[in-house]
Amino acid sequence: MDEKVGHAGSEAAIREIIEGWAAAVRRRDYPAILQNHSPDIVMFDVPPPLRSEGLEAYKKTWDLFFSWTDRPIPFDFIDLTITADEHVAFAFATLNCAEPGPDGGQKPLKFRLTIGLRNIGGCWTITHEHHSVPAAE
Amino acid sequence: MDEKVGHAGSEAAIREIIEGWAAAVRRRDYPAILQNHSPDIVMFDVPPPLRSEGLEAYKKTWDLFFSWTDRPIPFDFIDLTITADEHVAFAFATLNCAEPGPDGGQKPLKFRLTIGLRNIGGCWTITHEHHSVPAAE
Repeated sequence: MDEKVGHAGSEAAIREIIEGWAAAVRRRDYPAILQNHSPDIVMFDVPPPLRSEGLEAYKKTWDLFFSWTDRPIPFDFIDLTITADEHVAFAFATLNCAEPGPDGGQKPLKFRLTIGLRNIGGCWTITHEHHSVPAAE
Repeated sequence: MDEKVGHAGSEAAIREIIEGWAAAVRRRDYPAILQNHSPDIVMFDVPPPLRSEGLEAYKKTWDLFFSWTDRPIPFDFIDLTITADEHVAFAFATLNCAEPGPDGGQKPLKFRLTIGLRNIGGCWTITHEHHSVPAAE
């Protein structure tokens, strides 16, 4: 496949936004977590509900994520693939994270992430996130 | 948000491809399921594995899906949102599906779907799919 189809300037800007967002999650910095998100974001998160719509509902998914421990939670990209045009882009990734362990500690958890973005008035804006783990066997 | 940012011609073509793909799933038509997919597709499916890469691995996820019953399995959009530029697009949706029930029948299952596409040589091609259900509570 011709990798030159991509839009290199867009890809670099989006990589910076997504890596900055993950760094904000690691330091529990809500303003920085939310700063590139659309008011209309549609979020499919790892735990229920099935679907969260709007920035307030999106923020609540992070309240839940941060609620289970006061310790730092890993949130690190194993890989990140970005496909971008001038106005629309998507990215997908696998990340190392953690979930509550049986001893009250942390148990390693890998999850999958897909992000949809639009360039609105020159700013790349996240309009969709999909976080998941495979269903239990 | 200015909905005119979207690319109406692209959106109509993509809607036709995605709805055609879902119809192909409902009739277990492998050639039609696979016909708009990239050889390099990266699939995050509902059951394990965490990640499937390439068309052969993608096909295997459908072997697994179709293996649990000979009866028709619902695969119907509740909603479908498409965001498209000239060369890159993503779509997300919620669907009605089914899983094996305790009595050997079907139990209704809603799942979330995100699709990433590229326009390659004038043909919209699916390069990424992410299917999931929320993790068990």
